Amino acid sequence: MAKIHPLSDVQSENIGENTFVWQYSVILKNAVIGDHCNINCHVFIENDVVIGDNVTVKPGVQIWDGVTLEDNVFIGPNVTFTNDLIPRSKVYPEAFAKTVIRKGASIGANSTIVAGNTIGENALIGAGSVITKNVPANTVWFGNPAKQRGFIDEKGKISYT
Amino acid sequence: MAKIHPLSDVQSENIGENTFVWQYSVILKNAVIGDHCNINCHVFIENDVVIGDNVTVKPGVQIWDGVTLEDNVFIGPNVTFTNDLIPRSKVYPEAFAKTVIRKGASIGANSTIVAGNTIGENALIGAGSVITKNVPANTVWFGNPAKQRGFIDEKGKISYT
Amino acid sequence: MAKIHPLSDVQSENIGENTFVWQYSVILKNAVIGDHCNINCHVFIENDVVIGDNVTVKPGVQIWDGVTLEDNVFIGPNVTFTNDLIPRSKVYPEAFAKTVIRKGASIGANSTIVAGNTIGENALIGAGSVITKNVPANTVWFGNPAKQRGFIDEKGKISYT
Repeated sequence: MAKIHPLSDVQSENIGENTFVWQYSVILKNAVIGDHCNINCHVFIENDVVIGDNVTVKPGVQIWDGVTLEDNVFIGPNVTFTNDLIPRSKVYPEAFAKTVIRKGASIGANSTIVAGNTIGENALIGAGSVITKNVPANTVWFGNPAKQRGFIDEKGKISYT
Repeated sequence: MAKIHPLSDVQSENIGENTFVWQYSVILKNAVIGDHCNINCHVFIENDVVIGDNVTVKPGVQIWDGVTLEDNVFIGPNVTFTNDLIPRSKVYPEAFAKTVIRKGASIGANSTIVAGNTIGENALIGAGSVITKNVPANTVWFGNPAKQRGFIDEKGKISYT
Repeated sequence: MAKIHPLSDVQSENIGENTFVWQYSVILKNAVIGDHCNINCHVFIENDVVIGDNVTVKPGVQIWDGVTLEDNVFIGPNVTFTNDLIPRSKVYPEAFAKTVIRKGASIGANSTIVAGNTIGENALIGAGSVITKNVPANTVWFGNPAKQRGFIDEKGKISYT
């Protein structure tokens, strides 16, 4: 069974075994979240969202319609996703741009992920980065705009280029 | 009538028709908010704040004393305003620096707006930017510090320079 | 006595005199917080945390295990700390990297502090910065990555270099 803190507002019933949802988080009705995840406090998860198993979402993160987080993904605190490249108040795109974070990738604290990009398996995005491109598997990126700075293996060993 | 979620703490009575305020947001007593706005979850709005009609404020945003948002403004998630250029704990400036976001402007996700600046009508600030200057109407800015990168019309058509 | 808003979840009993904790903030059991602090809304404070007297923590900030804030520190809104240099979901380091913010320092809005660094006394970090190094006392830093740009005295007088 999922462990939902009573001070949260969780409307989805599709939350897996041993997944924790902490205080003051909001999860809308159609979101699907796997097993053994940790959804920290002050998180917002919209409807058209799929989150795999063993995923960590730190506080202050919003997971919008169109965002997918595969298994074992780490989303640092205050990481910010988007789903509309030219936002205007009260104007909605025909379809939201998709963002996929592949298995085992980690997004460092306070990074910004511009919609329409995929972060490859096991990739590491350094804290405070702005991602504007697709990121290949097993690479390390940081900066604003972020650039590739090295390689990383599944266990987290980095070689800088 | 405004639609105030019961899991928010809204102290102002000056909130317009058909404006939504979502979970875990806090709005202080003297804030004035127009009609047809959408104030998402985890937002904080202080007292000396005026927000026009049709404004969107995404989650994780704070609107401080001295900030004005005109009609049809879009404030992306985790956008961060300031009102004190040299903050020190427990030391307050004689007057807070003002920030104005003009009609139809959009501030991209996780951008930072240094106080004392005005963002012109219909301007677009790209995600993850740090704004340190006044931004003219109908221009596109991004980066840290943000620089002008192009022009945008009211309908959102961009021409890069 | 501390002033704890009833809409917060404060589990620590080690919170000093005249310290305010505002709505929807979470403070875990072993955190120690001094007197005359202001802990704004939407803040998360973990267990292995020591916060001095007269400290201001603005909304949207998380203070993780391993972070120390000395007296008179100012932490701006959405400032983001870290404690793990190569985060992977469900993998924990043997020990968390430590971060110390020394007396009287101010961290500008939406800055990111990479773990393992110390911010010196009275230092000022400009809004939107990414700190990747130790910052000496009485210096001003900004940018991504942040670099030293000047000096500042205890009263906040800046000389740019």
